[in-house]
Amino acid sequence: MSIYTPEWVKHAIFYQIFPDRFAIGNHPQQPLLKNPHWEDWNAPPTLQGYKGGDLWGVIEQLDYLQDLGIDTLYFTPIFQSTCNHRYHTHDFYQVDPILGGNRAFESLLNAAHQRDMKVVLDGVFNHASRGFFFFNDILENGPNSPWVDWFTIYDWPLSAYDGSLPANYKGWVGNRALPVFNHDNPDVREYLMQIAEHWIRVGIDGWRLDVPFEIKTEGFWQEFRDRVKAINPEAYIVGEVWRDARHWLDGTQFDGVMNYLFTAPTIAFVAGDRVAMDLVISRSYDPYPALTAPDYAQKIQALLDLYPWEIQLTQLNQLASHDTARLISIAQGDRASMALGTLLLLTFPGAVSIYYGDEVGLVGALDPDARRGFPAETEWDREVFDYHRELIALRKAHRALRIGTYRVLFAQGNGYAFARSLDDEEIVVAVNIGLESVKISLDLASLSSKSQPKQLVFGTAEMEFEPDNKAGTLTIDIPPRSGCILM
Amino acid sequence: MSIYTPEWVKHAIFYQIFPDRFAIGNHPQQPLLKNPHWEDWNAPPTLQGYKGGDLWGVIEQLDYLQDLGIDTLYFTPIFQSTCNHRYHTHDFYQVDPILGGNRAFESLLNAAHQRDMKVVLDGVFNHASRGFFFFNDILENGPNSPWVDWFTIYDWPLSAYDGSLPANYKGWVGNRALPVFNHDNPDVREYLMQIAEHWIRVGIDGWRLDVPFEIKTEGFWQEFRDRVKAINPEAYIVGEVWRDARHWLDGTQFDGVMNYLFTAPTIAFVAGDRVAMDLVISRSYDPYPALTAPDYAQKIQALLDLYPWEIQLTQLNQLASHDTARLISIAQGDRASMALGTLLLLTFPGAVSIYYGDEVGLVGALDPDARRGFPAETEWDREVFDYHRELIALRKAHRALRIGTYRVLFAQGNGYAFARSLDDEEIVVAVNIGLESVKISLDLASLSSKSQPKQLVFGTAEMEFEPDNKAGTLTIDIPPRSGCILM
Repeated sequence: MSIYTPEWVKHAIFYQIFPDRFAIGNHPQQPLLKNPHWEDWNAPPTLQGYKGGDLWGVIEQLDYLQDLGIDTLYFTPIFQSTCNHRYHTHDFYQVDPILGGNRAFESLLNAAHQRDMKVVLDGVFNHASRGFFFFNDILENGPNSPWVDWFTIYDWPLSAYDGSLPANYKGWVGNRALPVFNHDNPDVREYLMQIAEHWIRVGIDGWRLDVPFEIKTEGFWQEFRDRVKAINPEAYIVGEVWRDARHWLDGTQFDGVMNYLFTAPTIAFVAGDRVAMDLVISRSYDPYPALTAPDYAQKIQALLDLYPWEIQLTQLNQLASHDTARLISIAQGDRASMALGTLLLLTFPGAVSIYYGDEVGLVGALDPDARRGFPAETEWDREVFDYHRELIALRKAHRALRIGTYRVLFAQGNGYAFARSLDDEEIVVAVNIGLESVKISLDLASLSSKSQPKQLVFGTAEMEFEPDNKAGTLTIDIPPRSGCILM
Repeated sequence: MSIYTPEWVKHAIFYQIFPDRFAIGNHPQQPLLKNPHWEDWNAPPTLQGYKGGDLWGVIEQLDYLQDLGIDTLYFTPIFQSTCNHRYHTHDFYQVDPILGGNRAFESLLNAAHQRDMKVVLDGVFNHASRGFFFFNDILENGPNSPWVDWFTIYDWPLSAYDGSLPANYKGWVGNRALPVFNHDNPDVREYLMQIAEHWIRVGIDGWRLDVPFEIKTEGFWQEFRDRVKAINPEAYIVGEVWRDARHWLDGTQFDGVMNYLFTAPTIAFVAGDRVAMDLVISRSYDPYPALTAPDYAQKIQALLDLYPWEIQLTQLNQLASHDTARLISIAQGDRASMALGTLLLLTFPGAVSIYYGDEVGLVGALDPDARRGFPAETEWDREVFDYHRELIALRKAHRALRIGTYRVLFAQGNGYAFARSLDDEEIVVAVNIGLESVKISLDLASLSSKSQPKQLVFGTAEMEFEPDNKAGTLTIDIPPRSGCILM
């Protein structure tokens, strides 16, 4: 079968927002808490504290995001939830009242669409919460609940809140706070499908799917895709699958996955031995051991060979997410690692996803630290912000950076270069991860572009052109721990 | 100040529906449970079992109700709840999915209004449930919850489900399943006011207020009335206050209360020593000891003297409710008690409320037994149904029975008679609660009606007219345990 993925995603710059931590609106409408007592915005995040970010705040930051070059907002869960990260869904049809409720979301969606920005929501369809109506009814009524087959109960009475007793129902990774739906129950399946359809009808532009690999019910994700695409064929469906995702990327399920297979080698390459193992070892990706350029080239080529090109172009590439530490922290504060990673991210095929705050140098160890309050402007790392904006602008200006082919040109020691080519446009990206400058020599005959010599459009490097009896050789002398773009 | 109450209520026949037990729709739309396993409809109700009644079923029974003469539906709670009686509210903005959700309610409201029927909902604003979002967030996040001031917490961690520990937060009558709102919190107050406004805007015709006496926050019910009436000045507000309700019936709060001050003496009069004490002793009304006619006259006169007449006309009079045993059961099966009580109910000033099933002779001891499934037609007591329909029709045909003055004409031994008078219309109601026939003699000079002699329009009785030098005397010979209406 031929695979079709949404065209807009191939060109998109996503911005992942953890809503409790991005912005508090100055002009919220009808908040339920008039004088809220939030956890201090700048204090280290806690597992249970709320900092009070809301969607009114996001609306007020749309100018900022658009100026940065963002065109798609991807929110971690926004539905009513009894947890600051909102993965404990309490009601799939209500936007959390702290965030401003359905009213604020409707305003946000309108405001975003008026700016040609898209909005993707996080769909948590594997599990719910203890307060979720259909589970709570079981908790309250035991075997008398009509919803008893919506979850998997092992024993009565349920032990939902007493940690000294075994959790006698199926919770995600054994967590009794996260009762897992019985997806084999056709009523549950239909209930979840209708949620997916509802929000697509409301106007969202796609679903990011939380732990979709946990749902093993035959045909579940195929039906999900069919019903979502029937309403909006251009809706984006991206799964949280950390490793080999071929099972879900056959064209009948997801348009892409969160591309940790890009994240991990990229971090291992740019940060190398700087990687703080305690910030990565417990996660489902492997940004270690340190990779040399040939190692990196091999990993990237393997990734590019793993899925069809149509899928590659709608993968969701990121350096960090709410589920990982931030690169700047993984690299133990090494700012060059962040800069190099960002360069590789912004020049890779697939949609770019920037985790809120990464663009201003926000630090963050593992959850909950990776979910800090977005810093005040006085705290921003301006250099980080500037190269983010510059690289986003370059990517948006050049289709080859988005949908052009990816071809490794050079991979030796600390030097790595590749070309992105589309039609007559060919762009070369080169990086040096080492502490010494590196000379990368490119046989110009291997490049398809006719306009020579190449011009430096990003970064600093010395270029030297040496003619020969063919097209000649271009040597790029790259300073330590830096990268550049030539076209 | 002058008191104004809704005109329509003075003429209304309410029908109180316990939605889980009235009717299951044959044609539900998009139910979430395709093959539900309900508790057997005809089995004795249990505390936690659902029988699956829904609003689609109510819609299908509107012909039946209208034929009976019902013009107002009063529902015990219909909002999403984890309890079959639905007083444990889980979401005040959602009609319970078992009932058909907001969609079914919208259809019901339209169908009812098209028939000039009104709909009154039960508002439970004192407490919520453990799964209720704002409480559940406290349960999940402890002192970190932003909603912590919405309830009254004594100690951490909350012991919400472990009966072996003290319930360390305020629950209604100490019940940890029913966390009590902190009404003194302005945010909570506003939240509840908005719920009241929302459903009035949706189109409901009034609120029945559950345990309103528990809310002692200054001005709460005054604001409630003001905000509800600002949207619909004809909306009915009726409180659940079992005894002296003068505090709430000053014209600034409720239009009426559930008139157990009528219920109790009426049962004590018509059922007398037949009253099964175990079915009444635990309740907040006193349908005992047995009353003679003079006792009853005294109680009724005291009740009529208690509140302004404008309030009397919009009291909600009933013989039973979901909170009491049914009269037929209280009277240990004595059908005459039910007939006599119904006659007195249908001829008393104030709105009439018939508890679903009473009109077909459904029995029921205390909760949960008082909440049985509405019986199949083959099980109906046709005689009971016929006198209900006949008395309702008489009441609707004669304004005097609804808004005419009430004047005791005779009260001796087992005989009791009163007149309802309006303009030129005067209607006499007479009952005999004894086991022997009773002769009630009325001095016709005391009646205002000029059309003499009176005609029997309901019941059986012998009438004898004896002229004298004034208007003469009418003697009504009433068979044992019966009553009649003359006009």
